[in-house]
Amino acid sequence: MSSLKKYSFRNDYSEGAHPQILKALVETNLEQTVGYGEDRFCLEAAELIKGKLGRDDVDIHLIPGGTQTNLIAISAFLRPHEAVIAPLTGHIEVHETGAIEATGHKIITMEGRDGKLSPSDIEQAVDAHTDEHMVKPRLVYISNATEVGSIYTKAELEALSSACRQRKLLLFMDGARLGSALTSRENDLTLSEIANLVDAFYIGGTKNGALIGEALVICTDHLKEDFRFHIKQKGALLAKGRLLGIQFRELFRDNLFFDLAEHANTMAEKIQDALLSRNCPLLLHSPSNQIFPVLPNRVMERLAEDYSFEIQKKVDADHTMIRLVTSWATREDAVDEFIADLKGLL
Amino acid sequence: MSSLKKYSFRNDYSEGAHPQILKALVETNLEQTVGYGEDRFCLEAAELIKGKLGRDDVDIHLIPGGTQTNLIAISAFLRPHEAVIAPLTGHIEVHETGAIEATGHKIITMEGRDGKLSPSDIEQAVDAHTDEHMVKPRLVYISNATEVGSIYTKAELEALSSACRQRKLLLFMDGARLGSALTSRENDLTLSEIANLVDAFYIGGTKNGALIGEALVICTDHLKEDFRFHIKQKGALLAKGRLLGIQFRELFRDNLFFDLAEHANTMAEKIQDALLSRNCPLLLHSPSNQIFPVLPNRVMERLAEDYSFEIQKKVDADHTMIRLVTSWATREDAVDEFIADLKGLL
Amino acid sequence: MSSLKKYSFRNDYSEGAHPQILKALVETNLEQTVGYGEDRFCLEAAELIKGKLGRDDVDIHLIPGGTQTNLIAISAFLRPHEAVIAPLTGHIEVHETGAIEATGHKIITMEGRDGKLSPSDIEQAVDAHTDEHMVKPRLVYISNATEVGSIYTKAELEALSSACRQRKLLLFMDGARLGSALTSRENDLTLSEIANLVDAFYIGGTKNGALIGEALVICTDHLKEDFRFHIKQKGALLAKGRLLGIQFRELFRDNLFFDLAEHANTMAEKIQDALLSRNCPLLLHSPSNQIFPVLPNRVMERLAEDYSFEIQKKVDADHTMIRLVTSWATREDAVDEFIADLKGLL
Amino acid sequence: MSSLKKYSFRNDYSEGAHPQILKALVETNLEQTVGYGEDRFCLEAAELIKGKLGRDDVDIHLIPGGTQTNLIAISAFLRPHEAVIAPLTGHIEVHETGAIEATGHKIITMEGRDGKLSPSDIEQAVDAHTDEHMVKPRLVYISNATEVGSIYTKAELEALSSACRQRKLLLFMDGARLGSALTSRENDLTLSEIANLVDAFYIGGTKNGALIGEALVICTDHLKEDFRFHIKQKGALLAKGRLLGIQFRELFRDNLFFDLAEHANTMAEKIQDALLSRNCPLLLHSPSNQIFPVLPNRVMERLAEDYSFEIQKKVDADHTMIRLVTSWATREDAVDEFIADLKGLL
Repeated sequence: MSSLKKYSFRNDYSEGAHPQILKALVETNLEQTVGYGEDRFCLEAAELIKGKLGRDDVDIHLIPGGTQTNLIAISAFLRPHEAVIAPLTGHIEVHETGAIEATGHKIITMEGRDGKLSPSDIEQAVDAHTDEHMVKPRLVYISNATEVGSIYTKAELEALSSACRQRKLLLFMDGARLGSALTSRENDLTLSEIANLVDAFYIGGTKNGALIGEALVICTDHLKEDFRFHIKQKGALLAKGRLLGIQFRELFRDNLFFDLAEHANTMAEKIQDALLSRNCPLLLHSPSNQIFPVLPNRVMERLAEDYSFEIQKKVDADHTMIRLVTSWATREDAVDEFIADLKGLL
Repeated sequence: MSSLKKYSFRNDYSEGAHPQILKALVETNLEQTVGYGEDRFCLEAAELIKGKLGRDDVDIHLIPGGTQTNLIAISAFLRPHEAVIAPLTGHIEVHETGAIEATGHKIITMEGRDGKLSPSDIEQAVDAHTDEHMVKPRLVYISNATEVGSIYTKAELEALSSACRQRKLLLFMDGARLGSALTSRENDLTLSEIANLVDAFYIGGTKNGALIGEALVICTDHLKEDFRFHIKQKGALLAKGRLLGIQFRELFRDNLFFDLAEHANTMAEKIQDALLSRNCPLLLHSPSNQIFPVLPNRVMERLAEDYSFEIQKKVDADHTMIRLVTSWATREDAVDEFIADLKGLL
Repeated sequence: MSSLKKYSFRNDYSEGAHPQILKALVETNLEQTVGYGEDRFCLEAAELIKGKLGRDDVDIHLIPGGTQTNLIAISAFLRPHEAVIAPLTGHIEVHETGAIEATGHKIITMEGRDGKLSPSDIEQAVDAHTDEHMVKPRLVYISNATEVGSIYTKAELEALSSACRQRKLLLFMDGARLGSALTSRENDLTLSEIANLVDAFYIGGTKNGALIGEALVICTDHLKEDFRFHIKQKGALLAKGRLLGIQFRELFRDNLFFDLAEHANTMAEKIQDALLSRNCPLLLHSPSNQIFPVLPNRVMERLAEDYSFEIQKKVDADHTMIRLVTSWATREDAVDEFIADLKGLL
Repeated sequence: MSSLKKYSFRNDYSEGAHPQILKALVETNLEQTVGYGEDRFCLEAAELIKGKLGRDDVDIHLIPGGTQTNLIAISAFLRPHEAVIAPLTGHIEVHETGAIEATGHKIITMEGRDGKLSPSDIEQAVDAHTDEHMVKPRLVYISNATEVGSIYTKAELEALSSACRQRKLLLFMDGARLGSALTSRENDLTLSEIANLVDAFYIGGTKNGALIGEALVICTDHLKEDFRFHIKQKGALLAKGRLLGIQFRELFRDNLFFDLAEHANTMAEKIQDALLSRNCPLLLHSPSNQIFPVLPNRVMERLAEDYSFEIQKKVDADHTMIRLVTSWATREDAVDEFIADLKGLL
C-alpha cells in the first residue's frame, strides 16, 4: 500500500510534524514533568488556546486522536437512552468502526446537504422521535470542515445553534480539519464565535502539523464536570501528556496553526483552479483542503502511476471520483508538477 | 503539582524520549507514508520485535498507551459474559477508572502474593464460579513487573500458564514495565519464553524510553482475527502510526530497549542497597525499578523538600510508605545525591 | 391514553392470555418446581416445540419479551466490532430505544422493500464495508411477519439464507408475529424450513395468546454455547420460569398457537376485504394481522370516536395512514360492526 | 435437578402466585387495555403503593425481575465513570452474571457485616478513591432483607442514609425480600421511612406471592426523568404490562403483601426455633425467611432424601452449611414434618 516513489495527495497526515514542533520536543526532552496532562506545557497550551478564543471560562483537554475525542466527549455528554443526530457522511457514522455505538448510543443519520446539517434536518429528526420506544435525540454532531470539504458559514452555524438550543440539543463540532475551515477564503467564522455557538468542539492537531493531538474545548458548564475521568477510562490520558502540551503550545504560541492550515488551503485551491480551468466536474466547489474531482478513468489511472490518492467511488463506467488532500507539508513544486501533469491529461 | 526544582523519582515517565528516538523522528519527518499503522516503520518495528521473540507467527500491534492496550485486548478476547481474574493490586483493577468494566466485563480479584497470582488463586477463582448466575472466568491478567515491583520467575509463569491451559483460561501479561522485569538481576525469563507461555502480552514503550507506545503481541491464533477493528473502534489507531513505528524500530533495532531498562534497574538497586544498609523496611525486596520503602515521617518530609515521589500509604502514626521509581533517564549523579541525603537522614 | 369504551384494534396485546393458558397456570399453581427455566414445564415446552420443528438438535430458550430476545441474541452472537444489517422499518431500528446499540453494536439500515430484505440489499451493505475503519457486517435481522404486515415467501427466504451463508453472515428472524406469518393464506414456509434456513429465530408468544414470552430457537451449533449466561446477565432469566414454560406448553401441546394466529388473520382479512371493496388505498396488500389503510381525515376522525387504533402517519393534508391490528382475541362481532361503520363512512 | 417428590425449602419462588392474583388475572383477562404499563391496572397499583408509602411524590415502575430492576436503575442513575459500593455478599456482586458491569459500571465491594454496610464501610470506600485514575463511587447498593437473611434496623438505615447524603452518594435498596424484612419481628422500619431514607428501592413481588414483578420506587426527583426510556431499552417494558399491574394491585389492595411475607417469616421462625432448641449453629440468628444452619453431613444427607434445599458451603470435613427458605406458600404441615424429622436427627 505504501508508495514511496509517488507524491501523495492521499491525506493530510502523510508526514510527521512541523519542524518547530519537533524542535520543541527535542529542547524540552529531559525536563522532568508530572504526568497525565498536568505538566506546565499542557497548562500553557490551554492558556494559549483560551487566549485565541478570547474566553477563560472554557475547559481544554488535549486528547491523542479524533475518533477518541469524539467517543469520549459524546459518551460523557449523553445518558444511556440519548442519541446523536449526524449527517450521513459524518465521520462518526462512516469511518469510526461503530465507536459511538460501542459506547451504547445510536446515531440518527440525516441526509443533510454538502455534508452539513440545517435546522430543518434537526427538526425532522426530533419530530420522528416521539416517545420512550425510541431513542431520545440529544446531541447534534457536525464537522467543520466537513468530510466532503465544505465549511459552515456564520449564518448557518448560528441557525443550527439556535435550533439546537430551542430543542434542548447539545451541539458538538468535530474540528479535525478546523484549521482548514477557519483559514478558508470563504470562512466568516472565528474561533471565538464557534465557542459561543456550540457546546463543545475540538481543534484538530493531527491533520494540521502535529504528530498527534486534538484540543477538546468544552464551552458549556454542566458538561465539564469530571471530564478527566472519562478521558482516563477510555485510555486516552497519556502518561507523557507533555507530548500533547508541547505540540499545542507551538501551534498556538504565535500563528503557526493558522499558517499551516492556510498553506494547505492555498495548495488545494491551486489544484482546484486547474481542474476548473479544464471544466472538470467536482463533488462540490471546495473551500478547504479536500477536493473531490470526477476524472475520466484513463486520466485517473495515468495519474495514479505517479501520484497517490484515494478512490472515492465509481461515478459511471468511464468516470471515477477521487479525493485529493493537501496539508501543511504539501510541497508547492509537487503541486505545480501535478497540475502540469493533470493539464496534460485533461 | 509540578516541582521543577526537585529531582523526581515520582515515576518512569517524567522525561521525554530517548534522544535516539527523537533523532529518528526528525530524520524521517518529511517522508510521506500511508496512515494508520501500515507504514514501513511499523512493519519494520514488528519484524524487529518478532526477531527478538524468535517467532514469526505472532501478530504485533502498536498502541498508544497501556490502559488502552489492556482494554482493547481484553474486550476483544472476551465474550460478554466472560470475566477477568486479576490480582487485587492489578493496574486494571486499581488505576484505570473502571476501563475494563466500561467494556462490560467484571474483574474477579484475588489477593495473590507480592502482586502476583499463582495456580491456586486461579483454581479458587474458577471453583467459586459454578453456573450461569455468575460470570464465567476466562482470562487471567498479570503484570510483569508487577505494580509492587516484583517479577515472575520462569517456574512461576510456567505453573500459571499450565493452570490456565488446563482450565481453558487465556493468560494475558501487562508488560508496561516488561523491560525492567526482563533486565532484572533476578529474571530468568526470555521474551521468547513469555511468548510461548501467555496468549498475549505487551511490551511497554512509554515507561522505557518512548514518548508513547506499547507493542501488543498476540501469540494465540484465534485471538488475532480482526484485531485492527478493535483498535480503531476504541480510538487507538493513530493516523500517524509512524510515530509508534519509528519509536519501536529504534528501541528494537539494536539493544536500546534492554539497555534503557537495565539502567533504570541499576539506579533502583543503588537506592535499595542504600536503604537496606540502613535497615529501612521495604514492601518487598524489589528486583525492578520500583521501590517501596517505609520511612519515618520526618525523613519522608525532609526528603520531600528536595525530591519528588509518591506517597503510597500511611503505615502508622510515625511511618509512611513511599514509592521511588527510576527510569532510563534517571541521572546517576542525582541518585548519588539522593542516597547521600537519605543516609544523612536515616 | 386508555380507551375503555371503544373497541381496540390498536395492537395484538390488548387482552390477557388465552383461557386455556390461564387454566393451566391455575391448575399447576401450587406444584413446587426448581427455578430459572429448568422446571418440567419449560422442558416439556421445549420438547413440544422441537417436535413441531421436527428437529432435536436446536436449543430452545423461553424469554419474557421481544426486545429482550432481540438484544440478548444479537449481543451474544456478535463480537464487539460486528454489526447488524436490518431493514429501515425493522423493530430493532425503530422501536426498541436503541437496545441493540446499547449493547455496543451498530445497525446498518437498508431500504429494502415492503419491510423485507433481499440478497441485493445484503450485498450492497457488505460491499460498502471494506476495512477496519468501518464496522463489519455479521448478522442479518429480518422479521416475519414484518412490521408493515408483509411475509417472506419460501423462495425469498431461501435466497436470503443462501446470500448470508455465502458471505458468512448470520441470519436472525424476529418472529414476534411468526404465528400470523405461518398461518397466512399466502405463506408457503413451515417452522421446520425456517429452522433450516436461519441461524436463530424466535416464536412470539406475547402477540399470539400468551401473557408474556418468546421462544428463541438457536439452530446453529456455535451460537448455543453458554447462552443461559447471556439471558441471566441481561435480567431475563425469570425466577419462576414456569410462567413461560406452562404457557408455551399449552400453545404447542396441540395446535393452539396456530389456531389463534389463524383467527387473527381471518379477522384482518375481513377488514381488508371491506377496505378493498371501497377502493381504500393500503400501504400494501397485507397477508397477515396488520393492515395499514390510508383514510380521509374525516373518516379517520369519525372512526376514532368508537374505535381505538394507531395513527401511522400523515399522508397529505387530507389523508392519514392508520394501523389496524387483530389478534387471537379479536371478537368477530366487533369486526363486523367496525366493517359496517367503515362502509357507512367510505 | 427437579425433585417433585420432596418438599422444597430451596427458595421462595418454588410455587406460582397467590390464588387471589390468579383469580384477578382470570377476571380481567378479556378487558382490552393499552400496552406497556400505561393501563389502568398499573396506574391503580402505583396509586395503592403510594398510599402505603404515604407519599404521592414518588415514581413507581413495575419491572418483571430483580436483576433487571437492579441493572436498569443503577445504569440509569450513574454516569459512565461512576461506581457502585456493595457488600461482598450483594446479589449484584455474586449472582447476576456481571449484569452491572455489563452496563459499564464497576462494583466496589466492602466486607460489611452480616451482609450489611455501615457508614464506616462507605467512608473507607470513598476515601480509597482519590482521583480520576479510579472510578468515582456514587451509589450505595444494599439489600433488605440481605442475602444472608439479616435486616436493617431504623438506626442503621438512618446512619447509612446520612453518611450517603454527606458524601453525595445515592442510596439504593434491593427489596427482593422487602416483605420479609418489613414483617420481621425485629423490624422497626416502615415503607414510608424507607422511602425517606433512600433515593430508590424496590418492593419485590416475585419472592412474595407474584408470578413475576418488582415495584421500583424512585424517591429522588432528579432520578425520575426519562426513566421509561431505560426500562424499554433494556427490554423490560412488557407489552402486556397489565400482568404486572394486576398482580401489584392485588398485593397492595388490602394487606396481602404483608400477610404473605409474615407467613413466610413465621414458618422460618418455627424451623429456626427447632434448630436452636437443638443448639444447631447458624450463620446468624435470622429475623427473616432465610436460615443458614450448619449441619453434620450425615444429618444433611439424610434430610436431602426427603427435602430439597441448597448447599451453601462446606464448613469443615464433617459439617455443611445449608440454606432453608420459606415462602408465602410454605405449608405449615410440611414445616412441622420437617421439624419432626430434623429433631429426630439432631
